[in-house]
Formats: sequence, structure tokens, C-alpha cells
Amino acid sequence: MRGVIMHAPGDVRVEERPNPTILEPTDAIIRAAAVCICGSDLWPYRGIEELHGPTPMGHEYVGVVEEIGPDVRNVKVGDFVVGSFVASDNTCEICQAGYPSRCVHNVMMGSVGTQAELIRIPLADGTLVATPGVPDADLIPSLLAASDVLGTGWFAAVAAEAGPGKTVAVVGDGAVGLSAILAAKQLGADRIIAMSRHADRQALAREFGATDIVEERGDAGIARIKELTNGLGAHSVVEAVGTQESMEQAIGATRPGGHIGYVGVTHGVTLDGLGLFFAEVHLFGGPAPVRRFLPELIQLIWDRRIDPGRVFDLTLPLDEAAEGYRAMDERRATKVLLTV
Amino acid sequence: MRGVIMHAPGDVRVEERPNPTILEPTDAIIRAAAVCICGSDLWPYRGIEELHGPTPMGHEYVGVVEEIGPDVRNVKVGDFVVGSFVASDNTCEICQAGYPSRCVHNVMMGSVGTQAELIRIPLADGTLVATPGVPDADLIPSLLAASDVLGTGWFAAVAAEAGPGKTVAVVGDGAVGLSAILAAKQLGADRIIAMSRHADRQALAREFGATDIVEERGDAGIARIKELTNGLGAHSVVEAVGTQESMEQAIGATRPGGHIGYVGVTHGVTLDGLGLFFAEVHLFGGPAPVRRFLPELIQLIWDRRIDPGRVFDLTLPLDEAAEGYRAMDERRATKVLLTV
Repeated sequence: MRGVIMHAPGDVRVEERPNPTILEPTDAIIRAAAVCICGSDLWPYRGIEELHGPTPMGHEYVGVVEEIGPDVRNVKVGDFVVGSFVASDNTCEICQAGYPSRCVHNVMMGSVGTQAELIRIPLADGTLVATPGVPDADLIPSLLAASDVLGTGWFAAVAAEAGPGKTVAVVGDGAVGLSAILAAKQLGADRIIAMSRHADRQALAREFGATDIVEERGDAGIARIKELTNGLGAHSVVEAVGTQESMEQAIGATRPGGHIGYVGVTHGVTLDGLGLFFAEVHLFGGPAPVRRFLPELIQLIWDRRIDPGRVFDLTLPLDEAAEGYRAMDERRATKVLLTV
Repeated sequence: MRGVIMHAPGDVRVEERPNPTILEPTDAIIRAAAVCICGSDLWPYRGIEELHGPTPMGHEYVGVVEEIGPDVRNVKVGDFVVGSFVASDNTCEICQAGYPSRCVHNVMMGSVGTQAELIRIPLADGTLVATPGVPDADLIPSLLAASDVLGTGWFAAVAAEAGPGKTVAVVGDGAVGLSAILAAKQLGADRIIAMSRHADRQALAREFGATDIVEERGDAGIARIKELTNGLGAHSVVEAVGTQESMEQAIGATRPGGHIGYVGVTHGVTLDGLGLFFAEVHLFGGPAPVRRFLPELIQLIWDRRIDPGRVFDLTLPLDEAAEGYRAMDERRATKVLLTV
């Protein structure tokens, strides 16, 4: 089968790889319908994260079940399925409490590498959710988004306690930030402030439900959010970038007693304990427990009530993955879908 | 009137000070029945926090209303009252959301200095809560504890979401940590693990509701908490110290998806963003919104269902405040009550 391999920073190739096989009785093999490139795939691409030899890439996926191990009960051959970027058993105490990305048996799908024709899914019963039937082609981008960016944005909005009566500010206008806007809207937030400087992303933010746009960043951005919120700050703030500046912006933009949901991976970020103490904000984040939200998200997509697939602004065949990485690295694309 | 003045690190004197007067129509003057010395009063005493000239000390108090300003409606002369260490209007949006210590008009009582015979209370209507009647003398220590340490421990337990079905770990065995144990018990926690090395504090922890004691600290303490919780960590962790080590211990002892309530003032603490991201714990803390809890806490004390005054292990007359500071500084006392 064909699959994406990163050989070195900036060096992505689509190569022939051995077909995956059932290794554990709880595994399934799926034939990918679509996969995509994540912002986090750019870390090794840019040399920020070390590669240890040629590495299969990708952790997002939708497709059709091709084979199941003898212990798999919840999905069958021929099902169209969506799964999280973390495989989970969905039965352990941590999964049952709602945190499947921290399942005691979790397997990061990035270690499998889903940018390929065939994908081995560990813990298939816990990980995969079948759609109600074979989806129309135009639903596939949205179902794929549910695999990571939508589920992550949704988690951030839930962690920030977005809902009726709340003003929600979203720091970051990438695919996750935009998805968080969509989520905040679905969760019933009164007012949604998108922090964005890019006209195209501002437009999509408004389509997804943003009521206000703030272009300022840092202290000026915080001051603007306070101006918009009676001097108090937002009730709920989503942080979807993961830099020192974006985290400080999120903390500064939240009112005392408010909630921050952060999903930007906080590489090199340090938080000042005393500043956080006197900010008096709820802080919660981490790898999103996407699996928890999948049944609900799939149904919303199936019923065409949300269209999160709009975050994909470039679609390429799997064989042109290298161009997809370049386009995201050069910021010519927000999020790249690879058809398989 | 007599009042405590700190002149320099280690130099505490009880001196004649001018009687306070009504400055704002929303002020009240109370005659203190009892006040106390807080762990945070030791910062300037130890030279960790700078003094700017002779400074009136103290922020905890109970007493009888002696005079009220023309706009005060909720308390009257003769009422026995308890107030928080932060004065608040109890009507602003932040107060109404449950965060009166961050009231938009908040006044830190430490800036007034409550270790004195008479105390001016700003925003008396929002700040003070009258007891159902004149309390028996033996209830006064508990009512005084409600003014800060009990309310702070209670907030920490609430922030950590202590409750039925939960295992709660408490880092810190000072007056606040012990109060958090009492709170977790009242809130219905199944299991309460006190982290303590001192026999006398362990004994009080058990009386307050601790089911387990862990003497280990740091990584060994975290490992012990995990051993006690099926390898997962506690659901709820209270941090009541405020050092780098105690904060890391709290984060490490919490299961993914669990909650940390931190009330130790995090002087010089820095949190690693990436570590926090992958810990995936809810983090919430700050100056405790004690006023929110006062009506409930006063009733529990009045009904003799809780006895938080037991955290006071040394009682002295106000005139011997200097000895009280010494006893706390030298760790001969956990918490000192000053009778007035």
C-alpha cells in the first residue's frame, strides 16, 4: 500500500509500505477514505520535534472497515467509521469518566501513521464509531474533521464552559480555533469573539458563529476583550495556539472565576504561579478526549446541522502529500485533506 | 484603641492607634471579639515581603457592630458578625457569579489591619454576615476560622470538586489544609488522604475526616497516592502550601480529568505548560471567595456540626501578639487566636 513517510525535516515522501495486519485480537484494519495533515505534523517537518529515522505520519482518518480481529464486536467489515487521534478502550475508569485520550491503554495514532491507504486501528471497539450508513461524498471532510480538529475545538469549548449566557473568546484562528467557534455556537453561547487577523479566517469564523472579531493581540487584545465585556473579561476563553503569548492572552482575557479551555500544545510555555493565582481562572486542557464527543458530532454532521469540513481549504490526492505539507508550512493552506 | 503594628521583620508591637471612624456611608465599625494571625502575616515578619513603614496587621476578625454608616442596611449595631478577609459589595457581576474576593470594588482587609480592638469594615452590607444571635464563647474560635482558613479550605475542596464517590488528597497540613479535610468530609467525599508528617496534625486530620495519611513527599508522595488509587491518582487534590514542590506534588497526584483546588499563595512558583497539558487536570485557585460560603459555614458552626476552631492551638490576649508571631514563626503553633 501507499503511505506517507517523513525522512527528515522538509522531506516527506509517499512510498510503498507493507500492508498492516491484525496484530491483536482487538485490532481492525480500515481502508482510508480521507486523511489529513495536522498542524502538529509540522513540528518534525520544521525540525522542532526530532525524528528517529523514517517515520510514518498522520493521526486523523475516516474509512471503511476491511478486516477485524476476533474480539471486535462493535464494528463490522463494511462499516464506514470515524475514530479519534488516540485509540482507547472506552471501558477503563478514565475513559468512563470522559477522558478517553488518557485511557489507561491509550495508543497515539501518530505512532501508527494514518496518512496511508490502509490503517491498523488498535482497540477498535473502543476507538471507532460507525456512521449511520455510507456517507455522501460531501460529508466526508466534516466526518474527517471530527477525528481531531472538530473534536478538539469542541473539547476546548466544553472545557471553557461555553454555553447560554456566556461570552466566549477564542484565541487562535486555525482549524481548531475555528472549530471551537462552531462548537461555542452549538453549545448556545450568547456572544463569540474571534481573535483573528486574517480576512478569510474571519469570514469563516463569522459563518461558524463569531459575533465579534478582535484583531489586536497581546495586551491590546486583552484590553479590547475587556472593552467588549464591561471591563470584566470573557466568561469562557478557548486557547488554540499553544505559545507563551497566546496563553497569556487567554489568561488575561478571562474574568475572575471564568474558564479557559486550552488545546494548543504548550511547547516551551511556562506559567507564572502567582499571576495565575491572582487571575483566579479555571484552567483545563490537554489532548482532547475526542472519542467522548464522536457520536454527537457524527449525528450533527449527518443531519447537516454543522459543516466543520469547511476548515479544509486545500484537497490533494494522497500521492501529493508533500505539496500538502509545503502548503501548510508556507501558510498557503489552513488545513489539507488528502483523498485516498 | 490598641492594635498590632509591624515595624520591621521580627518587630511586632501592640500600640495605641487612633479609633477608626466611618469614612464611607457603606462602612461599619466593629468591636473585635477575636482576631488571629495568618501564615501570610509571616511573610513580612520573615522579610519575604517588603514593609513600607510601620504597618497595621491582620485580616481575620469576628466581633460586634459598634457603628454603621448611613447606607448600611443588612447589619445593625449590636449584631455579632463574621466577615471575609476581602471586603466585597456582594452585588457586582463577579460577586453574583460567586467570586466576591475578586469583587470589582474589593478591599483587602489586610490593608485595614484587623488585629485591633476596633475595625473599620468597608462595604459592610456585602462583607458582613450576622450570626443568629450572640454566640457562646466556645463557638468564637470556629466563627473566626470561617473568616479565612475554614472558608479558604472549603473553597479549595469545592474547587477540587470534592464530593460523593471521590478520593480527595490534601497537600499541606496547616490550618487551611486541615480545614479542607473538614470541608471534603462535609461535602461527602468517600476517601480523604492527608499528606502530613506531624503526629499532632495527623491526629486532627483524622478527627476532621481523613481516612488515610501519607507521610511521603515529592515523587514518593505521588507514588503513594497512586498506589492508594488503583494507579490513577486522586480525583480531587487540594493544594494548601504554595511552593513549587507542593504544586508539582498536587499536579502529579491528580488523575487525568481530575480537579486541583489550590489556595497556597504561589510565590515564586512556575508551572511547565507542557507538563500541565499532558497531566490534563483541571486547575483552579486563588484568593478564596469566602463570603460566598459564610452563611452556610456559620450555620454549620452554630448547629455544632463542625468545629473548625480546633485549628487554633495557641490563644493569647491581643497585647501578647508579638509572642503569637514568634510561636508561629518558630512553628510552635499552627494558628494563633488573639482575644480582644
